[in-house]
Amino acid sequence: MFQEQSKPDAIDLSHHLSVVARNRTVSPLKNLQKYFGKPGILSLAGGLPSPEYFPFENIGANVLAPDSFSHATSKGPLSWFWDLFSSKATTIPISVPKYPENPEDVNLATALQYGLARGIPQLQEVIKELTTKIFQPGYADFATLLHAGNTDGWMKAVTTLCNPGEGVLCDEWTYPSALATMLPYGMRAVPVKMDGQGMSSGSLREVLSQWNEESRRMSRPRVMYVVPVGQNPTGATMDAERKKEIYTICVEFDVIIVEDDPYYFLQEGPYQFPSQRSVRGSPESEISDEKYIASLSPSFLRFDYQGRVVRLDTFSKIIAPGSRLGWFTCNPLFAERLERQGETSTQAPCGFGQSLITQLLMNWQFKGCIQWLKGLRAQYTQRRNFFIDCLVEKFHLEIAPSTYNFFDGSAVYLASQIRRGYRNEKADTRVLFSFVPPTSGMFVWLRLHFEGHPKLQELGQETLEMKLWIALAEGGLLIGPGSMFSADRTVSEGGCPGHFRISFSNAAFEDLKKAVDIFERVLREFHENA
Amino acid sequence: MFQEQSKPDAIDLSHHLSVVARNRTVSPLKNLQKYFGKPGILSLAGGLPSPEYFPFENIGANVLAPDSFSHATSKGPLSWFWDLFSSKATTIPISVPKYPENPEDVNLATALQYGLARGIPQLQEVIKELTTKIFQPGYADFATLLHAGNTDGWMKAVTTLCNPGEGVLCDEWTYPSALATMLPYGMRAVPVKMDGQGMSSGSLREVLSQWNEESRRMSRPRVMYVVPVGQNPTGATMDAERKKEIYTICVEFDVIIVEDDPYYFLQEGPYQFPSQRSVRGSPESEISDEKYIASLSPSFLRFDYQGRVVRLDTFSKIIAPGSRLGWFTCNPLFAERLERQGETSTQAPCGFGQSLITQLLMNWQFKGCIQWLKGLRAQYTQRRNFFIDCLVEKFHLEIAPSTYNFFDGSAVYLASQIRRGYRNEKADTRVLFSFVPPTSGMFVWLRLHFEGHPKLQELGQETLEMKLWIALAEGGLLIGPGSMFSADRTVSEGGCPGHFRISFSNAAFEDLKKAVDIFERVLREFHENA
Repeated sequence: MFQEQSKPDAIDLSHHLSVVARNRTVSPLKNLQKYFGKPGILSLAGGLPSPEYFPFENIGANVLAPDSFSHATSKGPLSWFWDLFSSKATTIPISVPKYPENPEDVNLATALQYGLARGIPQLQEVIKELTTKIFQPGYADFATLLHAGNTDGWMKAVTTLCNPGEGVLCDEWTYPSALATMLPYGMRAVPVKMDGQGMSSGSLREVLSQWNEESRRMSRPRVMYVVPVGQNPTGATMDAERKKEIYTICVEFDVIIVEDDPYYFLQEGPYQFPSQRSVRGSPESEISDEKYIASLSPSFLRFDYQGRVVRLDTFSKIIAPGSRLGWFTCNPLFAERLERQGETSTQAPCGFGQSLITQLLMNWQFKGCIQWLKGLRAQYTQRRNFFIDCLVEKFHLEIAPSTYNFFDGSAVYLASQIRRGYRNEKADTRVLFSFVPPTSGMFVWLRLHFEGHPKLQELGQETLEMKLWIALAEGGLLIGPGSMFSADRTVSEGGCPGHFRISFSNAAFEDLKKAVDIFERVLREFHENA
Repeated sequence: MFQEQSKPDAIDLSHHLSVVARNRTVSPLKNLQKYFGKPGILSLAGGLPSPEYFPFENIGANVLAPDSFSHATSKGPLSWFWDLFSSKATTIPISVPKYPENPEDVNLATALQYGLARGIPQLQEVIKELTTKIFQPGYADFATLLHAGNTDGWMKAVTTLCNPGEGVLCDEWTYPSALATMLPYGMRAVPVKMDGQGMSSGSLREVLSQWNEESRRMSRPRVMYVVPVGQNPTGATMDAERKKEIYTICVEFDVIIVEDDPYYFLQEGPYQFPSQRSVRGSPESEISDEKYIASLSPSFLRFDYQGRVVRLDTFSKIIAPGSRLGWFTCNPLFAERLERQGETSTQAPCGFGQSLITQLLMNWQFKGCIQWLKGLRAQYTQRRNFFIDCLVEKFHLEIAPSTYNFFDGSAVYLASQIRRGYRNEKADTRVLFSFVPPTSGMFVWLRLHFEGHPKLQELGQETLEMKLWIALAEGGLLIGPGSMFSADRTVSEGGCPGHFRISFSNAAFEDLKKAVDIFERVLREFHENA
């Protein structure tokens, strides 16, 4: 069933195009393309400045070598300190001249000129290679197309696929910016319940099979938004089995899956206590590229035999967010409409960014990219480990199975206060928060337990969450309040259960440690002085 | 009346916001801004990668000095050839490190990180300075805000200001991409007649005052799209008087003016025959910066005492199109809504482009920018002159006043064939095309005269235009077919009168000459062999 074929199953996906996408005309200049670039033809058609007037004669950079980050995950909480001194600081100079000697090289005269919305050809090739070798779509004639980062990609996907008044399936806890993009256009979130792997396939089937147009006041949703790896905010990751189940349901109910996957390369694997970790982990550099790729949770593209997946990739988490560069992978019909949309909004992504990133990736080559990604995964694993280690240090933790919502099926860490003065003896048995150490991504998602809080009845969970959040901020620690990730406004009105999203991706290690100290102190006082 | 004031007249412009713009929520992260960046606070709120993981240690460029292009316009058709050898090729190295020593310098750690949609602070400052000193808005609390080029800016403006089914006032001949942006969203073009200065104020008043909702099947338009300098495609430029007239009408009928002004700095001035030009023109470097700025046609912003102008500026024509960077200037109410739109689509423009362009402009400083712009204007003047000189050389031209449409009020050049074998004697009196040498921009707009063509009755003007266009392309010359610039579909259905848009902005001078040779030959054969 999931074998690669040359074309997606010949089903008609054109009815998925929104009114806007259908009305979008082919760019007027496109009509001239029959003659554009024909040898010997003089073009005085476009309003193009002469490259002579671009004040940049060349641009360049010093870039890190692809082996800059150790591939091994280190053991103890202090090993990051030693890594600082042992890290290789090799840099490689790259440059992009306006007019290179070899006409096939990346050049500024093209990258800084008006160009096709699909971007410079060298970058198109690099992206095609990455997509083919890593994501391995289930059919051969898939298309890749640049966008200006996944927020831009999602905006283009949603306005290409949805009409005002339609619903979009999403996780009950989801990325608020994704909702902020679509809600003003009159598209509505249709939350699906989650478990420890993210979207529950059982709940998805329930929502779709029991859809009632009248009570819902909208037709059955035809589009899904999902972050399948290191889900934002819960950190959950779907395995292949879950993805196949969801894909099968989407075939049955004719749903397009928009797979927003920025954390794909940050698959850190299961957390282990420091005492259980091997001395230097197993160095990732010893894993072959094939094994590394096979170790990553497969994309929905892998199972896409009908061309109903629109995948969004971005350089934000693997190069830098300011790249504002990423790409769609989808069927050629959707790609053509998305390209037309690019022509009348962002046009091609920034030529400075395109050419520098292309030159970087061409310098690294595919093998170097994989090396970089392995190193990056090791870095994030170390950060995840360090942060959880700090929690382990500061709280008494018990591990138990859970059936609660997004924890369902996972081993949950229940955190309680360590009795002061009786360290390593008994803990206060009252659970203050619980969490599942994430296996991917940048976030730890905490469920707050206000059950024993004396003001719970009076104030409700959402207010307590906000009061605690303010107390933390006043105490010097800023984290994500859980209520802002709720897709379900009715839950929110009835009082959102308390959660926090904490990011371990950015702060210095000593600040991560300080953050846990602040968290422990403020949480204790919040419960004790209530 | 047009004096600068601290705030625009206290009229309520909020009713101009579209349903989409009204529904747009403040970014969820914005709620955290009370605490963001507070001294001593640890932020673990956002999903930001550590700058340590950005593989760019620094980026840099060799950029042209601001005096790279001679400020004098040269006399004869061959002087460009000498300029090639006399041009200064001084380049200046600039660089942007990840962590500069001076914390106020542009740095990659910030430019490549997630940031506010309004962009890096140093660029905001540069843009504010350019806008204040050059465009001189009529009120002090105007806002500037980055976008990703004017196509993106127009997309954001139109979806912020218009609802589906509403009309947008525009020139009867206009930039097709601007229409392609808005038409799929159900917004409709309302063409206004033109004269030699672009949009006719008389026709604008007529359209608005005689608006009939029932026969038009839409409410009176509340938004105008206009390219006031070097209009695309006609090349027309409005003077201050016309802008004041239009502004006054827009006040009366409560219309928002979206001023798309990419050619603002390419104000070449009137064309003169080579024999009438002074030996080296008047070198622009001798003009003071104040006089240079005063010599430019004022922006609509200058007269904007009510905050009803949304100006779109771009680096496309003055730095490079691949910058995909530009800015809005408008009232703070609109700017806030446009910024929210940026947050949920493009976010901040590309950090590579932002930082390199900022570093360039900070290196040049304001004085250098003006020097660069003077040089650029001289270059385009030379190109415009050279191209018209070639037409003068190849055709018999007579100058006459005209009342025809976009020529109305201008001296029109009527071109006819020079009789072969009788050069410099009598011309074939049949006018083949006519044009007004543009005073700004990149284009010459030709009106084709098919009156004497034997197949006019049979085929109609639009078909003849297309046949001639194909004959030119087959002959090796690609130009813009006029019909694609028609805003009025009903004219188009009834047969669009024949026009071509020819760009002199990009081709090498010898190719411009070749192009005119091809044009002359193909046009002659088209009429003779019909």
